[in-house]
Amino acid sequence: MDRWYQKTGPQGDVVISTRIRFARNLNDFPFPCKLNPNKKTEVVNLVNGALGALNKDEKIRGLGLRFIDVGELSKSERISLVERHLISPKFIEKTGGRGLISSQDETVSVMINEEDHIRLQVIKEGLNFDESYPLADLIDDILDKKLSFAFDEKLGYLTQCPTNLGTGMRASVMLHLPALRESGKMAQIASSISKLGLVIRGLYGEGSEPKADLYQLSNQVTLGFSEKASIKNLEDIAMQLIMQERSARSEIVKHIEIVDLIHRSYGVLANARLVSESEFMKLISNVRLGVATGEIKNIPLDLIDSLIINVQPAMLEIREGKNLSATHREQLRADLIRQSLTTKNS
Amino acid sequence: MDRWYQKTGPQGDVVISTRIRFARNLNDFPFPCKLNPNKKTEVVNLVNGALGALNKDEKIRGLGLRFIDVGELSKSERISLVERHLISPKFIEKTGGRGLISSQDETVSVMINEEDHIRLQVIKEGLNFDESYPLADLIDDILDKKLSFAFDEKLGYLTQCPTNLGTGMRASVMLHLPALRESGKMAQIASSISKLGLVIRGLYGEGSEPKADLYQLSNQVTLGFSEKASIKNLEDIAMQLIMQERSARSEIVKHIEIVDLIHRSYGVLANARLVSESEFMKLISNVRLGVATGEIKNIPLDLIDSLIINVQPAMLEIREGKNLSATHREQLRADLIRQSLTTKNS
Repeated sequence: MDRWYQKTGPQGDVVISTRIRFARNLNDFPFPCKLNPNKKTEVVNLVNGALGALNKDEKIRGLGLRFIDVGELSKSERISLVERHLISPKFIEKTGGRGLISSQDETVSVMINEEDHIRLQVIKEGLNFDESYPLADLIDDILDKKLSFAFDEKLGYLTQCPTNLGTGMRASVMLHLPALRESGKMAQIASSISKLGLVIRGLYGEGSEPKADLYQLSNQVTLGFSEKASIKNLEDIAMQLIMQERSARSEIVKHIEIVDLIHRSYGVLANARLVSESEFMKLISNVRLGVATGEIKNIPLDLIDSLIINVQPAMLEIREGKNLSATHREQLRADLIRQSLTTKNS
Repeated sequence: MDRWYQKTGPQGDVVISTRIRFARNLNDFPFPCKLNPNKKTEVVNLVNGALGALNKDEKIRGLGLRFIDVGELSKSERISLVERHLISPKFIEKTGGRGLISSQDETVSVMINEEDHIRLQVIKEGLNFDESYPLADLIDDILDKKLSFAFDEKLGYLTQCPTNLGTGMRASVMLHLPALRESGKMAQIASSISKLGLVIRGLYGEGSEPKADLYQLSNQVTLGFSEKASIKNLEDIAMQLIMQERSARSEIVKHIEIVDLIHRSYGVLANARLVSESEFMKLISNVRLGVATGEIKNIPLDLIDSLIINVQPAMLEIREGKNLSATHREQLRADLIRQSLTTKNS
């Protein structure tokens, strides 16, 4: 079964993925930070116990939801879950008293005892709230029936951090915006967007130029709006950004310097024998721009998007089945990139 | 008819070309710097008049020697002659009262009224004194009979600059020494070589790292040695350098960093849309090293050596038939490189 990051979805030239996340807590337990180890285990077991109810639903059954004991995973395996956006970095800072439910295709994950008792996430390729939101909503309903979530008529779902009160929902889209970044428009866009209750930030790293020109656009406000209204707002603004990015792309590829940058980035990735993560992220963004604008032919976008995940450090260690030195990792990364780009390109 | 730089000769993995040059002056005329325009024209006509005698020789006839009036060439055409190593830069500083004889394959050239009345040059691909010296010697003999050269029993051939007195001969080989340069051994080698009556220097530019790692090894002393003894000495030392370079190459290609450098240099050249001359010279040296060591397959060395000449600025202008802006030149250079490398490489 292909994972979400191995496929390209709607508006895939600009949108990598869509994500819905619900923060939920059980009525009869304090927030995780206040739980002793035994109580944490109790929460893990309770949520794990709801798997049966979930798998009874015919829309959910096919996903192959299963429980993963995070404590039993190797360090590389744990980190690779973060690299695949299945869990948060915070979730694996400690390993005791935690649990994870995930689907075979990794579109669905439930972190147990992260900041809240439950962090339910549905992630889909491309711009796709039409599928991700109903699925998240359905899973949320079934869990709520089984586990009884902490809810207040006025404050909505109760969460450890007040910024999540209300819907407890964070919806986001991951956008590839090389042309808007290149055109120097991101600061202005970020400022406009913040006035609309949304926030946009670099996905990797917190510098002014995020790695691979990947940006996450998400809702900031969870109180006073319905889930559906929040999503509608986010989707509308995402579509505007998509149109702006496309327009900026068609402008910048008129410049020979940009076309040159695209092709020499491909040339290096398709031939190098050592590639660092930061060099990869810089160059793959140019190659993705090239593929999306038709400058580079015969390479599908989903291959690029898979690579971005597959060459992350822990993913490489898992593939190789052992810890790797820095040089060996750069070598394996280069081999994988070269294989991927040149096989499909011929 | 292929020109010498379109072919690879003996020891072609390290040696690009072999050159013999004789400085000669006519008995009845002062050196060129002391000649008035009329007298210069007289010298040009005299030497040009010897063409008939040259073409009568059956070994020379096939070369298609012909006279070129340098004053009638465009600036790009004149500069391109320098880029093809047919004439010296000094020769085209002024255009009046000068003439050039050259063969179809550009192995033979006779500059008339450069520093001396006659500068006869024979250039061959690879390490090849066996062919270049006898041919230069034969042409020299015929010209001497026809024109009567200034010669002194004690000083040998009389030349304007005392450093050429004696044989008037400068013999040289152009070497590609990327591995010796990379290993940091060039300074020591240059110092040893100077004690043996030879000199080695970067072919392009006078910096410590010559462009494309091309070095010219030539005899320094013209007085007190016979032509043949000078050539024997030069050839022996060239062979030692060739062996040292090969040994250094087999060492450095064990390092993944060097292999990486070779392949990413190829990747950039085979894909870029803008390539400056200095970037080209840097990268093509790595590619040539890759081809010579078998790291890069399916690209013949003669293609690399042709490219080094063909992408020079004036050569590009002649190919395009007009003056070029800097960007347009970089674009045409990139197109030519890409075509050459990817056609033969598939």
